[in-house]
Amino acid sequence: MKENKRLPDKTVERLSQYRRNLLTCVANGKTHIFSHEIANLLHITSVQVRRDIMLIGYSGTLRKGYDVQELIDLIGEIIDSQFGQRVAVIGVGNLGRALVSYFKGKRSKLLIVAAFDTNAEKVDRVYAGVHCYHYDQMAEIIKKENISIGIITVPASEAAKVAENLVISGIKGILNFTPSPVNVSPHVFLEEYDMITSLEKVAYFVKKNDM
Amino acid sequence: MKENKRLPDKTVERLSQYRRNLLTCVANGKTHIFSHEIANLLHITSVQVRRDIMLIGYSGTLRKGYDVQELIDLIGEIIDSQFGQRVAVIGVGNLGRALVSYFKGKRSKLLIVAAFDTNAEKVDRVYAGVHCYHYDQMAEIIKKENISIGIITVPASEAAKVAENLVISGIKGILNFTPSPVNVSPHVFLEEYDMITSLEKVAYFVKKNDM
Repeated sequence: MKENKRLPDKTVERLSQYRRNLLTCVANGKTHIFSHEIANLLHITSVQVRRDIMLIGYSGTLRKGYDVQELIDLIGEIIDSQFGQRVAVIGVGNLGRALVSYFKGKRSKLLIVAAFDTNAEKVDRVYAGVHCYHYDQMAEIIKKENISIGIITVPASEAAKVAENLVISGIKGILNFTPSPVNVSPHVFLEEYDMITSLEKVAYFVKKNDM
Repeated sequence: MKENKRLPDKTVERLSQYRRNLLTCVANGKTHIFSHEIANLLHITSVQVRRDIMLIGYSGTLRKGYDVQELIDLIGEIIDSQFGQRVAVIGVGNLGRALVSYFKGKRSKLLIVAAFDTNAEKVDRVYAGVHCYHYDQMAEIIKKENISIGIITVPASEAAKVAENLVISGIKGILNFTPSPVNVSPHVFLEEYDMITSLEKVAYFVKKNDM
């Protein structure tokens, strides 16, 4: 694959999911894996798996499948940044705290280095190794700490204002976990996730299975 | 659309997202909306929006677009269950608590009615109106409360065991929020979400924009 070619959204998502599963394989002492095994883990087809992995220029052997560690390293070269990326969490409620603990130590190239909140009881506390600053210091800390990605976990009513301030502060990517969609300028990459959508999807298929 | 036809995964996801945005429109006093406005909110094409909405048998007018309330009601008829569905959260850590507060009052047809944990300090406490039971009572409460969907928010190392127990307890759909993929029998609908995948996607496109 040409280094500068931009992969489709869904391919990046799947590569991330492949790596997640491959890391579990390594932890379990598994050194090789077949495309149909990856496919089963992710509930997709093995054709899809082979197509994605061919797209990043890798192939396994018929007899043993893919080398797990080689594939992990290759996915890392493609989706990670060489020098790592620094992330801030805005809003240290239950969800913000869950995220900070969840990401801790999971990816060496993607570090949560700051949290922000307006609540005086939270400011200057440390959550899972991450310092919480006052929201008013956001622009300053983002610059100083070279933060490029912001995760929004504030109450929905504050989401638009926070997104706007993140853009003004020079952030390059936003992950919005609030139920309120936000708008950002086109040069900032935005990903939004609403937990209700996942739950509604499960509910729909449970209903359909019952019919 | 034939009532019994099962919509594709991604269509159900988008219908849920349309409704989420339409509910915000209603709250803002907006009565009609065009497909390109919905498309902009969700960062997809208006062709996609029109195709999905045609698929559920609805159409707007050229001059005013879609009637917001009618479309909300129709999406509800399609994705909600007539008598509602009852949900349990397993694992009352930060993420479990975030979910319980987040869903509270958001959807009338999808109710979190119980939480489970093994920690004695959490058992018999009430979180955002939801009673937390001991994990050992799970099978009994799922039956008694007629719960059909389980959300897993336990530590990753416990995920497989919890999924297995949920299936044994008669659950019909599982939403797994842990980083550890689980396996369930094919008659149970499984949706897995890993927050790292969303973050890695943002990180990848931020890197690509920088190149």
